[in-house]
Amino acid sequence: MDFKELAKEYGTPLYVYDFDYMTAQYNELKEAFRGRKSIIAYAVKANSNLSVIKHFAKMGSGADCVSIGEVRRAFLAGIPAYKIIFSGVGKSDAEIREAIERDILYINVESEAELGRVELIAKELNVAARISIRVNPNIDPKTHPYISTGLHDNKFGVDLDSAKRMYIKANNSQNLDPVGIHFHIGSQLTELQPIREAAEIVADLVRSLDAIDIELKFFDVGGGLGIKYDNETLIQPYDYAQAILGTLTGLDMTILCEPGRFLTANAGYFVTKVLYEKQNGSKKFVVVDGAMNDLLRPSLYNAYHEIEALTENKDDLREVDIVGPVCESGDFFAKDYALPPLNHNDLLVIKSAGAYGFGMGSNYNTRGRSAEVAVENGKARLIRRRENFDDLIALETKYLED
Amino acid sequence: MDFKELAKEYGTPLYVYDFDYMTAQYNELKEAFRGRKSIIAYAVKANSNLSVIKHFAKMGSGADCVSIGEVRRAFLAGIPAYKIIFSGVGKSDAEIREAIERDILYINVESEAELGRVELIAKELNVAARISIRVNPNIDPKTHPYISTGLHDNKFGVDLDSAKRMYIKANNSQNLDPVGIHFHIGSQLTELQPIREAAEIVADLVRSLDAIDIELKFFDVGGGLGIKYDNETLIQPYDYAQAILGTLTGLDMTILCEPGRFLTANAGYFVTKVLYEKQNGSKKFVVVDGAMNDLLRPSLYNAYHEIEALTENKDDLREVDIVGPVCESGDFFAKDYALPPLNHNDLLVIKSAGAYGFGMGSNYNTRGRSAEVAVENGKARLIRRRENFDDLIALETKYLED
Repeated sequence: MDFKELAKEYGTPLYVYDFDYMTAQYNELKEAFRGRKSIIAYAVKANSNLSVIKHFAKMGSGADCVSIGEVRRAFLAGIPAYKIIFSGVGKSDAEIREAIERDILYINVESEAELGRVELIAKELNVAARISIRVNPNIDPKTHPYISTGLHDNKFGVDLDSAKRMYIKANNSQNLDPVGIHFHIGSQLTELQPIREAAEIVADLVRSLDAIDIELKFFDVGGGLGIKYDNETLIQPYDYAQAILGTLTGLDMTILCEPGRFLTANAGYFVTKVLYEKQNGSKKFVVVDGAMNDLLRPSLYNAYHEIEALTENKDDLREVDIVGPVCESGDFFAKDYALPPLNHNDLLVIKSAGAYGFGMGSNYNTRGRSAEVAVENGKARLIRRRENFDDLIALETKYLED
Repeated sequence: MDFKELAKEYGTPLYVYDFDYMTAQYNELKEAFRGRKSIIAYAVKANSNLSVIKHFAKMGSGADCVSIGEVRRAFLAGIPAYKIIFSGVGKSDAEIREAIERDILYINVESEAELGRVELIAKELNVAARISIRVNPNIDPKTHPYISTGLHDNKFGVDLDSAKRMYIKANNSQNLDPVGIHFHIGSQLTELQPIREAAEIVADLVRSLDAIDIELKFFDVGGGLGIKYDNETLIQPYDYAQAILGTLTGLDMTILCEPGRFLTANAGYFVTKVLYEKQNGSKKFVVVDGAMNDLLRPSLYNAYHEIEALTENKDDLREVDIVGPVCESGDFFAKDYALPPLNHNDLLVIKSAGAYGFGMGSNYNTRGRSAEVAVENGKARLIRRRENFDDLIALETKYLED
C-alpha cells in the first residue's frame, strides 16, 4: 500500500481500505461454515460506506442492520431483501413499518414491548412480520464493558424465559412469524468457551421450542469475532464455526453470522500528517492533522491502534503522545508510543482503522470528515469525498436571520 | 418552554436552545469585567451553530476559534475580524495562511514549531502576523482529566521559559507581532484559587516582558467557567473577574475572556421520545429515540445530565438506565436514574445539553443528526434542519460503481 502516493493524491487525513483483505476475511469465514447452510450478514455499522457494503454484496453477503438508514444502505448497495436483518434495541414505529414493507428476512426483536409494536404495525399492514428474538444468554464474554452485550445488566436482548414466552405469543399471532433466534454476547471476542456456552444455551431453547411445534429456521449467532489490534490471541474462524456447529446436533437450521470488525477492521488505515512536535515538561507530543473527530476509539474506549511512521529513519525511538488539533486533552491516538523523530509533513499510518473508524466520525471543532479510498487489485479509487466547509454549514445557512 | 409543542412541530430527537438564557449569561459575564476594557470571545466549539454565533455577535461578542472552519463560521455570523482569535495545538499551514490573510485579531500560538510556521507564512505574505502565546502555568484545575489543560503533561501551550524565549524571538522578527498572552487551565472550573494562581503567574510573565520592552495588549484568560450540571458549587462571574483583575495591577491590558459552556450549556435541552421500557434481570431500561451519536458526553466523559420526564405522574419513581438505539453498551444517557413510569411516546428532556452536545454529534449507525431549534422571546424557529438519509449518503453515491 503506497500511503505516500495516496496521501499526495487524496490529501490527509485519509481513510484507506484494502478491499482485497476484506475479500479474504469474508471467504475465510464463509468457508468455515461450509458444513451448513449459512448466510454471512455483514454488520453494516462497522463500516457503512456504500462501496464497502457493495463489495460484500458482490460476494453474496447479507447485511445486519441496526437502523432503517443501514437497511436503506444495504438495499442501495445491492443486498437482496432476503439477506437483510434489522436488529437493535430502539426501533421506531416508522422504522419497523418500512422494514416490514420492504420484506426483509426478519426483524430481530429485542424486547416484549417491541414485539407488541411489530405485531401492531404488521396488523395495520395486514401481513405476518418475520421475526427473530434476541436472547441474552447471560454469558460473560470477557471483553471491554462498552462492547460487552450478553449479560443481564445490559440493554440488549431478553432472558430465556421471556424469549420463550415471546415465541409462544408470536406463534399464536396472525401477524407475527417467528423464523429465527439470535444471540450476540459481545464484540472483539477472543475466547472460544463463552461462545460455545452461549450457543449451547440458545440451541437448547430452540429444541424446547421445537418440542412445542415452534420451528425456527435461522440460528443467528451474531458477530463479535475478535481481531488483532495489538497482541490479542485470536480465535480461528474454523474453530469458531466448529464450536457453534457442535451445539446444533439434530437441528436443521441455517446459520446467520454477522461479522463487522472481523471483515473490515484490519483492512483499514487512517493516514495522518505530522504538523508539529512539541515538548511539554517531560512529555513529547506529536501533533497530527487527524483528530478524535476522525477516529474516536482511542478517546472513547482507550483503544490501542498500532501506528507506523513513514520515515526513512525507523530508529532513535522516543516515547511520544500522538495527539490531534481538537481542543480536548482526550484528543489523542496513542500515549507513550515509541516513534522515531518526525518532521513537518511526515506521515503516520494508524492501523486497524477499518471498523468503527469513519462511521463514528463527527464534525467536532468544525472539522470536515476525511475522504475514504478503496484499494482493490492494486488500484485506488475514491469512495467518499472529503467534506468541505460548505458541506458543514449547508443545513444551517438558510436559517441565518439578518 | 413547551417541549411537547416543539417536539410535535420539529420531531424528535431535538435540540432546543433558549437564546434569552444565552443573552443573560453573556451580559452577566461582560458586566463582571466592566472595570477594564474587555472582549468576551465566544468559544465557538461549545456550540457552533451559525445562528448561535450570530446571537452572540449581535451582543458585541468576539469569537474564540480552534479551526479555520470555526473562523469562517465566525465571519459568516457577523463577528468582526478584530474580535476573532484562532487557537489550537494543530493548525495546518493552510489554516495559518487564511487566518493571516483574513486579518483576525491574533493567532494564539501553542508551540515553538508553530511559531516558526506562522513566521514563515507571514514572511511569504509579507506581513507581520499578530500572535499571542498560550502559556501553560502548570496549575491543577481540579476537573475531569479529559478537560484539564493547564498541566505540563498535556498537549496545550508552552511552559513559562519557552514562552519568554518565544516572545523574544517574535519581537525580533519582522514577520511576527506579539500582542497578547493566553492561558486556559481547563474546562468546567468550579474553584477560584487555581484561576487566581494561574493569572498571577501569567501576569508576572507579562511584567517581566514589559521590563525588556515587549508590551502586550491582550491578557487572554481563556474560558472554563463551570456550570451547574448537577450540584456543583459555582464560581460567580463577578468573583471570577475580580480574581483575575486583582492580578493585573499596573498593567494596561484588554481582557479577553473565552466562555463557551458558560454561555450555552444550560441554555440547551435535548428532547427525546420514549420508545420502549424493558426489564433485563434486575435492571430496567428506558429506550429512547436519541442516542450517543446525538449527545456523546455521557459515553465519553461519563457526564451527568439532569433528565426530566414530561409525564403527568411524577411519582412512583424507579431507578432506570436511559439508553439509546445505538448498538453499544456505552450508548446511554444516564444509569440508575430515578424516573416515573413511562409510556411509548412520552418525552424526556435532557438538560445542560447546549454545549458539546450537537457539535460532537455523528452519523454513527447511519442516524441523521437532530434538528436544532432556537427559542427567543417566546418564539421558536429552526436553526438547522434535521439530517435525512439522502444527506448521509450524498458524498458516497457518486462513487458507487456498477
